[in-house]
Amino acid sequence: MFELTILGCHSATPTENKHTSSQILDVNGNLFLIDCGEGTQMQLRKAKVRFTRIKHIFISHLHGDHFFGLIGLISTFRLLGRSTPLNIYGPKGIKQIITLQLKMSNSWTDYALNFHELSSLKSELIYEDDSISVSTLPLDHRIYTNGFLFTSKTNKRKINSHATKGLDLEPFHYSQLQEGCDIELADGTFFENQELTLDSVTEKKYAYCSDTAYNEDLILLLKGVDLLYHEATFLERHADLAKKTKHSTALQAAKIAAAADVKALLLGHFSSRYSEKLDFLKEASKVFETIFLSEDLKTFSI
Amino acid sequence: MFELTILGCHSATPTENKHTSSQILDVNGNLFLIDCGEGTQMQLRKAKVRFTRIKHIFISHLHGDHFFGLIGLISTFRLLGRSTPLNIYGPKGIKQIITLQLKMSNSWTDYALNFHELSSLKSELIYEDDSISVSTLPLDHRIYTNGFLFTSKTNKRKINSHATKGLDLEPFHYSQLQEGCDIELADGTFFENQELTLDSVTEKKYAYCSDTAYNEDLILLLKGVDLLYHEATFLERHADLAKKTKHSTALQAAKIAAAADVKALLLGHFSSRYSEKLDFLKEASKVFETIFLSEDLKTFSI
Repeated sequence: MFELTILGCHSATPTENKHTSSQILDVNGNLFLIDCGEGTQMQLRKAKVRFTRIKHIFISHLHGDHFFGLIGLISTFRLLGRSTPLNIYGPKGIKQIITLQLKMSNSWTDYALNFHELSSLKSELIYEDDSISVSTLPLDHRIYTNGFLFTSKTNKRKINSHATKGLDLEPFHYSQLQEGCDIELADGTFFENQELTLDSVTEKKYAYCSDTAYNEDLILLLKGVDLLYHEATFLERHADLAKKTKHSTALQAAKIAAAADVKALLLGHFSSRYSEKLDFLKEASKVFETIFLSEDLKTFSI
Repeated sequence: MFELTILGCHSATPTENKHTSSQILDVNGNLFLIDCGEGTQMQLRKAKVRFTRIKHIFISHLHGDHFFGLIGLISTFRLLGRSTPLNIYGPKGIKQIITLQLKMSNSWTDYALNFHELSSLKSELIYEDDSISVSTLPLDHRIYTNGFLFTSKTNKRKINSHATKGLDLEPFHYSQLQEGCDIELADGTFFENQELTLDSVTEKKYAYCSDTAYNEDLILLLKGVDLLYHEATFLERHADLAKKTKHSTALQAAKIAAAADVKALLLGHFSSRYSEKLDFLKEASKVFETIFLSEDLKTFSI
């Protein structure tokens, strides 16, 4: 499973029905939280996410609409009796902000709170396990900001169709072969796995890019991405504002998606000045085809 | 007008339908915010409060359920283009927490942000204008905590009914007299204000006490209060937990209300372990009569 749930996709300030940036990426049951605007813990409850399964939180930058919900979530984990360690990846300074508040409230967590502070201006690998790796995507914003590239690895073997041609294989044989097992046919014929399969690593890639000005340096890093979330705070008619605030327009997001040849583009981080979200889709569609619009509490399968 | 709106009245962690501590006190159109749990700015929008009219924010203590929404509200004020100064009254340390986050996000406010840090263990006057004064109510909690006593002053003059007896006064004459004006009757008779009125200062008092262990030191400070909000995190069957965590039970809150002879008691800061809020009312009713239960977004006239 490689599934993304949008908890909030609006810029600047949260309102009753518009939540600021936060997403949950579910990789085979392991949950990765990406950004954490105010009220994220309430959105997690609405989305019926099991809190305890969140072990890694990635914060893009220290503007409030991307991290003001973090201290509340950390605090709630403590009150719920969490014991599993929690890893937080974010810009240098995030540790000081969180620990100052824990100190002032005399509420140290009972679980290990591990900070991984980022300051590199180049893409770097920041997390890896058997099923996923995460690296940074340096963004161009008003303060130090990173996007994140999640690469999920599937170690299933690939069926060698030349070798299996003419063999009387049942569906379960294919599954066994993909899992790396040897098989025995109904007539007793035995095959070692390598006789019928090839090495294969099927990668799925999800890239999160919020917030950033139009930035062609991203294109190379985004090659081969299955789903790209790219901020589209503005429409082209406010391109001057986008430039001034170091955000992107829907068209600019689509240009990056097209140049990087990603499979699909997911737009988000919408400014509240626009009442019609379909305008983002229309504008981006001029240069790219497969586009989705973010929506709070909507899930996308990658 | 002296009106209280509950924005949140639940302890510990906010959920979709249960918000943590925050209240708005409306004194003749001037708004005083008391505590500011996570999501308070969304609750303010739901309650249709005009943000700009909030000029003073009082924070009781630095546990998250009482102030994690403050940095978001300050940030939103900035994004909405606020220019009016904002005054924040709270425990020593609050300035460092807020300014650190503004510094890290490179988002200094364009309006004056004035911190009034509190550290006294005795009741002190912390704010006063023509219509209201605010003093602290030292509480007994796990960390340094203050309640707040709001005393609203009405400087309207009192009609001297002996002097006005037999005079042919219209309703607008009474209003003019209460405002301190001289009046002229239809037949041309002139009266100076002092001939028909008496000096009068009508006080209304609202006291906010959250969070605190049972604390008899409060009784003297609460004498003459019209409405007392007193935390009732627990019921008596968890009196041991209340003692351990320095909170109160509903019965203890009612005992304080009775001993201080307040006019009405408003219970709040309920623990989420209880599904039936009427149990708080039942328990407190054993020793006090006029009791209300807090409810998110409910308004009480004082």
